[in-house]
Amino acid sequence: MPKFIQRKVQSKVMADANVLKEFLGEVKTEIDAYILDFLPSEHARDEVQCLYEMMRDYPQRSGKRLRPALCLLICEAFGGDPKVAFNTAAALEVLQNWLLIHDDIEDGSDLRRGEPCLNQKYGIPLALNAGDALHCRMWEMLHRNAEILGHEVAFQVLAEFTCLSNQVVEGQHIELSWVDNNRWNLTEDDYWTMCVQKTAWYTSIAPCRLGAITAGAAKTDVDHFIEIGKNLGVAFQIQDDVLNLIGEESQYGKEIAGDISEGKRTLVLIHLFNSCAHDEADRVVEIMAKNRSRKSLADINEVLSLMDKYQSIAYAQKRAKALVEEACAQFAQRFAHIPDNRAKNLFIPLVKFAVERDY
Amino acid sequence: MPKFIQRKVQSKVMADANVLKEFLGEVKTEIDAYILDFLPSEHARDEVQCLYEMMRDYPQRSGKRLRPALCLLICEAFGGDPKVAFNTAAALEVLQNWLLIHDDIEDGSDLRRGEPCLNQKYGIPLALNAGDALHCRMWEMLHRNAEILGHEVAFQVLAEFTCLSNQVVEGQHIELSWVDNNRWNLTEDDYWTMCVQKTAWYTSIAPCRLGAITAGAAKTDVDHFIEIGKNLGVAFQIQDDVLNLIGEESQYGKEIAGDISEGKRTLVLIHLFNSCAHDEADRVVEIMAKNRSRKSLADINEVLSLMDKYQSIAYAQKRAKALVEEACAQFAQRFAHIPDNRAKNLFIPLVKFAVERDY
Repeated sequence: MPKFIQRKVQSKVMADANVLKEFLGEVKTEIDAYILDFLPSEHARDEVQCLYEMMRDYPQRSGKRLRPALCLLICEAFGGDPKVAFNTAAALEVLQNWLLIHDDIEDGSDLRRGEPCLNQKYGIPLALNAGDALHCRMWEMLHRNAEILGHEVAFQVLAEFTCLSNQVVEGQHIELSWVDNNRWNLTEDDYWTMCVQKTAWYTSIAPCRLGAITAGAAKTDVDHFIEIGKNLGVAFQIQDDVLNLIGEESQYGKEIAGDISEGKRTLVLIHLFNSCAHDEADRVVEIMAKNRSRKSLADINEVLSLMDKYQSIAYAQKRAKALVEEACAQFAQRFAHIPDNRAKNLFIPLVKFAVERDY
Repeated sequence: MPKFIQRKVQSKVMADANVLKEFLGEVKTEIDAYILDFLPSEHARDEVQCLYEMMRDYPQRSGKRLRPALCLLICEAFGGDPKVAFNTAAALEVLQNWLLIHDDIEDGSDLRRGEPCLNQKYGIPLALNAGDALHCRMWEMLHRNAEILGHEVAFQVLAEFTCLSNQVVEGQHIELSWVDNNRWNLTEDDYWTMCVQKTAWYTSIAPCRLGAITAGAAKTDVDHFIEIGKNLGVAFQIQDDVLNLIGEESQYGKEIAGDISEGKRTLVLIHLFNSCAHDEADRVVEIMAKNRSRKSLADINEVLSLMDKYQSIAYAQKRAKALVEEACAQFAQRFAHIPDNRAKNLFIPLVKFAVERDY
């Protein structure tokens, strides 16, 4: 490539990166303010005041607010006013927060976004109930859509939320039951199914669909996001699994290699199983099946070095990259009829950032 | 009272009892069938099939289905067609079931409706997630109301559910935090506040309001049920606390004196504290504050015999009876303008049964 074209491409990439950074910064500021304004903050009874503080805890922690960003971006890309999608986008972030509270209990996790999990701070009973409290507020937030979007579209949004909720609890059950039943004979297809349900529906499929719905997009366009969102969501989950193994704890905000401690079935691990020798596989099962508290640092390092030996992490990273490229190609092809605008142009940088992030 | 009048009153009471029994039997059969038809039952993946079985577990256990009964009865009393309230009434029962699943985890309970709790059968992670799955289905069920009730009323019903949900998680938090903080300096007012939020909103206030709303009742009539429902709901909770202490396990379906094991603050216990000598109160605190697994049968019997000595159970029973009488008087007075019909006449027998039940 001639030097002046190379410079042009580079400066285009940097310009995109700056616009994206600015966009994500704005979304985070505004969504956080909206949610914290919506959630109750003060109560005359000390006990209830404590519940309110618990409900406001995770929403105040760091995080990228990728789901609301995706929803707002797609709304704008389809010619909608992102303001009308704002309440719905915020509800996606509330969803993420109640899911994380319950997920941390289910996995017995220690850290979330760099701080002790809610169950570590308050114990399981109060944390479980605070998750329920936040869950209920999500539906209350969606109820507001009657005034913002009118009854018809507000009910369509509710239908999307019931659909994605049903998906996420099924995906979560699949993952938990693999650990519970000590099941290891898993294929990449099993991982795909679990990830689409556990992650893709609420992380990418529904945020994009909701953006399109609130913009008044055609049903066929809304439905294209199922295929695109599956690729994106699984790519996102793979990258999350990779960061769990090789990320910086201070950046990533969770215990590094926590998935090994928790016995999680990831694409990295499935690749390792399909690549390593029988005796190595037996050893990995032996370690992974141990109770969390009985896994030593040496155990975890043994699994990590096998992953290194068989390049399982590099394999997963390659898969994630291929999936996001596929999603971008699908997006460009399916929505060639949508006029170019700032939002449409930001979609590809946003999803690439989401999957290539290092935190 | 002359004998022939006495006979007439008795035969009226027995006739009411028979009509009530028949009504409750019909509600149970139809609501159970509706819920089990609504919930998913079969899935090609074994793991998801297992989740569906967990979701269908509590709804298939025994129980009185009092909340749907109250909703359907009030709808009919206000001249509505109970068929239009049916989906909403069923959602109240789904609510009760997901609340019980999470409640059993929070309290570390063993038995529910005569069988091991879901968390005892499957462990906390899977049970917690199954509760969430059922919770999500409740909102999906309410989404159906768009077609049954039209958008306007369906949104009103959603607003009631968000309101009662916010109440119930706050009430639950208050109760859990009393145990967690080992707080004992509680008054009857504290108990009242906790019970109204934890129990009355979803057990009596909202079921009655929803029945009235689906019948198209005036807002003032709908609002009268707040006062009536508070008295009923607290009376119901007091009776539940009493049965927990003196019921038959085979009938009541939970561990007898489980509330003492779990350190629950009940009206019976608050009365005991306010009546007994200082050294006795110290001893009760000492026992109640023990970890569940460290409470012996002798400990529990010691508390029970103090409750007997100070007639705390009899006191609570008297309070429950007075509250239900108050609610009945309010109902008769507030709704004198509603024409007599089968449903209106069944309200008082139903609520008396709910509070005087022995299971």
